[in-house]
Amino acid sequence: MGIVGATGAVGQELLRLVLEREFPLKALRLFASARSAGKTIEQGGKKFTVEEAKPGVFGDIDILFLAAGGSVTRALAPDAVKAGCVVIDKSSALRMEPDVPLVIPEINPEGLRTHRGLIANPNCSTAVMLMGLFPLHRKFGLKRLIVSTYQSVSGTGAEAVRELEAQVQAHVADRPLEKKVYPYQIAFNCIPHIDSFGADGYTGEESKMAQETRKILGLPDLKVSATTVRVPVVRAHSISVCAEFERPVDLATARAAIAEFDGAELVDDPAQKRYPTPLDFAEKVKCGVGRLRLDTAFENGLSFWVSGDNLWRGAALNALMNAELMVRNGWLQPKAAAATA
Amino acid sequence: MGIVGATGAVGQELLRLVLEREFPLKALRLFASARSAGKTIEQGGKKFTVEEAKPGVFGDIDILFLAAGGSVTRALAPDAVKAGCVVIDKSSALRMEPDVPLVIPEINPEGLRTHRGLIANPNCSTAVMLMGLFPLHRKFGLKRLIVSTYQSVSGTGAEAVRELEAQVQAHVADRPLEKKVYPYQIAFNCIPHIDSFGADGYTGEESKMAQETRKILGLPDLKVSATTVRVPVVRAHSISVCAEFERPVDLATARAAIAEFDGAELVDDPAQKRYPTPLDFAEKVKCGVGRLRLDTAFENGLSFWVSGDNLWRGAALNALMNAELMVRNGWLQPKAAAATA
Repeated sequence: MGIVGATGAVGQELLRLVLEREFPLKALRLFASARSAGKTIEQGGKKFTVEEAKPGVFGDIDILFLAAGGSVTRALAPDAVKAGCVVIDKSSALRMEPDVPLVIPEINPEGLRTHRGLIANPNCSTAVMLMGLFPLHRKFGLKRLIVSTYQSVSGTGAEAVRELEAQVQAHVADRPLEKKVYPYQIAFNCIPHIDSFGADGYTGEESKMAQETRKILGLPDLKVSATTVRVPVVRAHSISVCAEFERPVDLATARAAIAEFDGAELVDDPAQKRYPTPLDFAEKVKCGVGRLRLDTAFENGLSFWVSGDNLWRGAALNALMNAELMVRNGWLQPKAAAATA
Repeated sequence: MGIVGATGAVGQELLRLVLEREFPLKALRLFASARSAGKTIEQGGKKFTVEEAKPGVFGDIDILFLAAGGSVTRALAPDAVKAGCVVIDKSSALRMEPDVPLVIPEINPEGLRTHRGLIANPNCSTAVMLMGLFPLHRKFGLKRLIVSTYQSVSGTGAEAVRELEAQVQAHVADRPLEKKVYPYQIAFNCIPHIDSFGADGYTGEESKMAQETRKILGLPDLKVSATTVRVPVVRAHSISVCAEFERPVDLATARAAIAEFDGAELVDDPAQKRYPTPLDFAEKVKCGVGRLRLDTAFENGLSFWVSGDNLWRGAALNALMNAELMVRNGWLQPKAAAATA
C-alpha cells in the first residue's frame, strides 16, 4: 500500500486509520512532494520515511491512495494505473469521469469490482450528507434536494485549522486578527464561499454536491440546490437537508431506515435535547443524523440534520473503507508482474 | 417614552439607538425588574435611574417599548394600553394575535395606523430574512420557502455572549470548557436547536419563522420549511434562503429589487469575493444580501444569503423604526388624560 500526500491533513488521518483499523498490510510506503522527501513520520509506534511522489516509483504497490490535490492526481494517477496499482483518489479531478466509479462503500460498492484501476471518493459534504439521505432515498425515492452546509475549517486543510486557532488566540489576547487562508476572518464569523465561484453563481463545492449526489445515487436528473458555508468549527461538517421524495413518507419508516443503515447513527430525541453536533461527531466512523421531521414545505418531504467527520467519512475513512471492502470481498487482483518493473 | 427591560441586551441597544438616532424625546424613562430598580445606566453622556416595571407606572408615557420576555409582556401590556401608551413589544407573546399588527416598517407599515395600542415586532431571524425576501416577493410572488439559519449567540442574550467568550478563553488557556446557557458547548460547534421543540419536531424558532412570515407578507398558505441553528458568532444572524416564486424570475430584476429596497444592501460580486458575512453586518442598519442566483431546484427559484444584526434589525432597531415612522407620519395620537391618572 502507498499513501501520496502523507504529510497533509487527510494523509495523516489515513495513516492513522490504516494502522488503527489494522488493515492487512504487506508493506506501507508514504509519499509526498520533493520538499517533504526524507522526513520521518511516526504513527502507532512505527516510523516511516517519506519518499518523493513521482512517476515510476509505484511498481510494487497494490493500493495507492492519492490524498493530495487534483494536480497531483492528474500528474500521478495514469502512471500508477499503468504500474498496476488500484488508485483510490480523494481529489475532485476524476470524480465525474464516466469510467471512474465514485464510491461510498455502504451505498454503491459495485464500482469497487468494475473499476479500471481508478476509484474516486466523493467530496466531504456530499459523503456526510448521503449518510443520512441514502437510506431515505432507498425507501422513498429522492426527487428534490435543498441543502445548506456548516463546514469545518479542517476541510480546507491544516493551515486553516491553524488560522482559526491563531485568530481565537489573538482575540483573547486582544491583538489584531490576521488572515491568510480565508478572504475574511473565520473566528466568530460565517463565510458563504467554499471553492471558487462558477458563472451560475454557485461555488464549486455547491456544484460538486449536486453532481456527485446525482452520480452516486444514479439519479442524473435530480434537482439539487446547495449553499455551502464555512463556520468556525475545527472538525466535522454538518448539513441541514430538506428533501422531497417520489413516494409518501412517514417518520417511523424513515427513522428505522436511518437506524438500520451502516453509515449512520440516529441521534434524534428532541425532548431529551438529543441531536447531532459536529463536536460529537469529530473522529467518529458513523455520521450522526437527527432533527428528522416531516417537512412543511413539501407534501412528501423530510428534513434532517447530519454531522460527520469531514476528514474521516468525507475523505480518509471513506477511501480506506473502499480498500477494506475490496480486500474482504477478494476484489483486489493479486499484483502481477508490475513489482518487477 | 419608556423602555421596559432596559438592562437587557435588546434594551441596552434600544437606549443607545434612541439617543444616537436622536428620536424626538419628551422624556425617557427606563424600567426593569425590581432587582435592577435604582441602578444607574449611563448612555450617550446621560444618566438614567432604572425604575421597577409594574402596572400603574406608565401613565405619562406615550410610547412604551417592551424589550423583555413574553411573561413580562403578558403582565404589563394590558395595563400600559389602558394607560394610553402605544406598546411596541419585542417578545413573541402577542405576535400571532389577530388584532395585533406584526410590523416591519419597510414592509407593512399600515399596522402602525390601525393598531389598538399594541404593536408586535417580528422574531430576529424572520426580520433579517425578510430584508432580502420581501423585495423579491413583491416582484415575483413568493410560493415556497426553505431556509437554514446561522444565528449568533447574542440572540439568546448577554449571558450567552459571555458563555461563548468564556469557552473561547478556557480553550486558549487549556482549561475545561463550562456550559450553562446552552445544552452543548457552543465554541467551535453548531447547535441545531433554538427555542423549545414542538410535537412536529420543529423548534419554536422554526415555527415562528413560518408563521410570522405568513402574517407579515399576508400569505396564510405559504409553504415554509426552516432549520434554525446556533453558531459561534457573537452578533448578526445569517440565513441561507431558497425561495420558489409564482412568476418567472430573472437575476437582473431580482438584483435591482434588492438594491432599491430600503432595508437591504446588495453585496453581491462573487468574482471579487464580495458577499455578506455576519461580522460585516453587526451594528449595521441594513441587512446584507448576496450570493443571489437562479435556484437549481426550482424552475422559478432564487437562492440568496442574508446577514443582519439580530439585536438591531431583529429587535431594537425595528421597534424604534416603527416608532420613528409613527412620529414622522403623525400617526401617534397626542396623549390624552392618561398622564393625570
